Amino acid sequence: MPEICGPTPALLARLADILGPQGFTADPADIDPWLSDWRGRYRGASAALLSPANAEQVAAIVKLAAEARVPLVPQGGNTGTVAGATPPVDGSALLVSTRRMNRIRAISAEDNAVIAEAGVILSNLHDAATAIGRRFPLSLAAKGSATIGGLVSTNAGGTQVLRFGTMRNLLLGIEAVLPDGSIFHGLETLRKDNRGYDLRQLLAGAEGTLGIVTAASLRLVPQPAARAVGWVGLPDPQAALTLLRRLEEATGEAVESFELVPARALDLVLANIPGTRAPLTGPHAWNALIEVTGAEGGADPAALLESALAAAIEAELVEDATIAASEAQAEALWALRESISEAERIDGASAKHDIAVPVTAMPAFLIEEEAAVEAAFPGCRIIAFGHLGDGNIHFNILPPHGVDRGAWMAEKGPEVSAFVHDRVAARGGTLSAEHGIGQAKLAEFVRLADPVRLATMTAIKQAIDPLGLMNPGKLLPLASRAPTP
Amino acid sequence: MPEICGPTPALLARLADILGPQGFTADPADIDPWLSDWRGRYRGASAALLSPANAEQVAAIVKLAAEARVPLVPQGGNTGTVAGATPPVDGSALLVSTRRMNRIRAISAEDNAVIAEAGVILSNLHDAATAIGRRFPLSLAAKGSATIGGLVSTNAGGTQVLRFGTMRNLLLGIEAVLPDGSIFHGLETLRKDNRGYDLRQLLAGAEGTLGIVTAASLRLVPQPAARAVGWVGLPDPQAALTLLRRLEEATGEAVESFELVPARALDLVLANIPGTRAPLTGPHAWNALIEVTGAEGGADPAALLESALAAAIEAELVEDATIAASEAQAEALWALRESISEAERIDGASAKHDIAVPVTAMPAFLIEEEAAVEAAFPGCRIIAFGHLGDGNIHFNILPPHGVDRGAWMAEKGPEVSAFVHDRVAARGGTLSAEHGIGQAKLAEFVRLADPVRLATMTAIKQAIDPLGLMNPGKLLPLASRAPTP
Repeated sequence: MPEICGPTPALLARLADILGPQGFTADPADIDPWLSDWRGRYRGASAALLSPANAEQVAAIVKLAAEARVPLVPQGGNTGTVAGATPPVDGSALLVSTRRMNRIRAISAEDNAVIAEAGVILSNLHDAATAIGRRFPLSLAAKGSATIGGLVSTNAGGTQVLRFGTMRNLLLGIEAVLPDGSIFHGLETLRKDNRGYDLRQLLAGAEGTLGIVTAASLRLVPQPAARAVGWVGLPDPQAALTLLRRLEEATGEAVESFELVPARALDLVLANIPGTRAPLTGPHAWNALIEVTGAEGGADPAALLESALAAAIEAELVEDATIAASEAQAEALWALRESISEAERIDGASAKHDIAVPVTAMPAFLIEEEAAVEAAFPGCRIIAFGHLGDGNIHFNILPPHGVDRGAWMAEKGPEVSAFVHDRVAARGGTLSAEHGIGQAKLAEFVRLADPVRLATMTAIKQAIDPLGLMNPGKLLPLASRAPTP
Repeated sequence: MPEICGPTPALLARLADILGPQGFTADPADIDPWLSDWRGRYRGASAALLSPANAEQVAAIVKLAAEARVPLVPQGGNTGTVAGATPPVDGSALLVSTRRMNRIRAISAEDNAVIAEAGVILSNLHDAATAIGRRFPLSLAAKGSATIGGLVSTNAGGTQVLRFGTMRNLLLGIEAVLPDGSIFHGLETLRKDNRGYDLRQLLAGAEGTLGIVTAASLRLVPQPAARAVGWVGLPDPQAALTLLRRLEEATGEAVESFELVPARALDLVLANIPGTRAPLTGPHAWNALIEVTGAEGGADPAALLESALAAAIEAELVEDATIAASEAQAEALWALRESISEAERIDGASAKHDIAVPVTAMPAFLIEEEAAVEAAFPGCRIIAFGHLGDGNIHFNILPPHGVDRGAWMAEKGPEVSAFVHDRVAARGGTLSAEHGIGQAKLAEFVRLADPVRLATMTAIKQAIDPLGLMNPGKLLPLASRAPTP
């Protein structure tokens, strides 16, 4: 690796000059909020926070940093869960915020497309799409802070992947500043473009290690005329998966969300989140939240869902079910699902895993691995919830009752996670379904990665970022200089 | 570039030994059919045709070829239109056929996934999916010969892209032999996997220049319970686009195909293809073929289409319309669309362009550029048909009446194509929407490419294939040794 230097006063002065007072600060109070990751587990240092106003300013920053051999850490809403936007602890790198680049450059209902700058906040994009009678079908809990640049760079998932795919599937084009300071102009809104290697898809999910995304063109879809939201009680995860497949066949793939919630997660929400109440009269080992949408001239989704659920109860696939009778009831059902992470946070520290296995393997995984973890780590409790239809579950392990959870996590956390990741790998799964690698999963990723995959990724990184200056310490060991604890 | 050598007798003997009589032939009569491209415009040479039975044999071939510095040209069904699978004329390269790797390794309705080897023929994959109550929603005219490896390597499109996207969107995983002979094991059927750079998407559409795809895992979808196929007469392309957007809103995006057919293309089909007849009573300047599908419990697609078309006639958007009353009528309407290329072939040589512009820009493009071409090249006639909803039109230019079409093409073809490509580029479009670059479009691609895109692609090529042995002369000028005429 070439030598990497920290930023000099001369470099900072030149950057301040280029970016102006709105785009440059070296005031520790301004920088401080952006030095920690969202979960507060990682903390870095940076001599300045750079906030360019456009791609040309980003290009100027990248060129100067390359000349000075100073690494750059791009950051959007800083809502990631793997510390992918937290700078190294040694202060060698500079933070580059995309948040000022927050214009929607173009939006068209007829083209079903929008061009948004990297700093556009997801909920603002939702609003802009709604205003022209369209929607952008990707949503997640952090939508009020997460930015388009970050969502593209991490190939974000969320609750509508079942029908619309991850960010990758919604991406039409990218504008990015590459590590040599050149601007990649790939913002076409074309539906089809077979001119060689898909650089857009290479930059998507690259976590800022191949360049800084400055804008993206994204696909929009029509707004649904109606939606139906239901909640069902189920005996086991296999029943849930069977139900999902039947619903998809009955509705022509209009199932947008199918979220699995175990009794333990629902109990935690009901105990910790004020204003929530149980959706069904009795308890059920497993639950699922279901959303089905319908078009203008098409079948009523509530009627479709009702008849499908009635048939499922008849077939003893489903134990009990309710369908929201109003938007308020629908929101209340969604709140149960979306409050799980917050309820867990209130409950205390836990070992979290964002795993995926093939969809059909998930029911057995949930039953068998819950038992395996509880046998290997007596007293631990599993909360496994999420996107069953994507084969993606948040498999979280709570320490035994009565222990100091922070201390237990420090002592046992890595061992528990290695245990889980090994079992996931043995079933052909991934240790990162939607959260990415960042710093938090780097060691485990490297430990379990296919050497061919790692070697090919490293070759690409070295070809595009030969100085290793783009988001060091994230995603690839190559760029790792000073691992954050 | 490192020096590249032709195959020696010793190398051929070792390959024959590894592959056995079923996997190796040096008999010119066996090799000959595979030396020309599908359109018969390019012809190369190869000392042997290698037909490995599995990925391990491909890896052995690639390693030996790398040691001997002999280039390899992978080939599937050889149905591409840009000579991407035709070897160089100088005989330096060896042809590697994937056609013997034709097993479907796994298929699951519950997982909605299939793992198919590179040599599986598309129509066989369709049949396998149908047999388990699913379908693979990508189809094109060459489905009886085109193979999965080629369809992945060229990111194939076809007539269902509007709803399901190109091959890229249906791709879950890839197994490939990389240029160093290592096997990339990426066949997971995971719906979500955020472990860094998406090597699957890098290999998809790479036209064999980064390695040889040996298998792919692909997404399946439920079979529709019903379909409705309609044909409409329209005053102009803008009316067609407006109609498409209304249909999508009315049907919840259940429009699977929306193919634009100008009067001239329909006339050519009716004149040249026996058994075809006009679908509407009067002539219309433009026509569209529409297919809408419906699910089990959902609205009847024929009823949806009928009411939407009635409203469109009322609004004077559509001049006339018919909906197929039987499967036979539906097939007859589709035959009109699918016979256009054959009707053109019978008519004689023409300058073909596979272009895309943003969807909203296409109506004006069709009107204005038809006029521009006819003004610049007096007597020429345009036949522009295809995937309006993808912004992708096959923009073909027929020579003036009475000229020797072959001679005209040789003399005027490049000039006409450069004229068209310049106009496409000026509208933010692409000179290859779905056919790829191969040999046929290489010069034009390089002429018009953004230098940043070209430099980044070249850096990736050099990083992954430093010897430049994988499918030389295709996609990138780097790998071009002896341009085929």
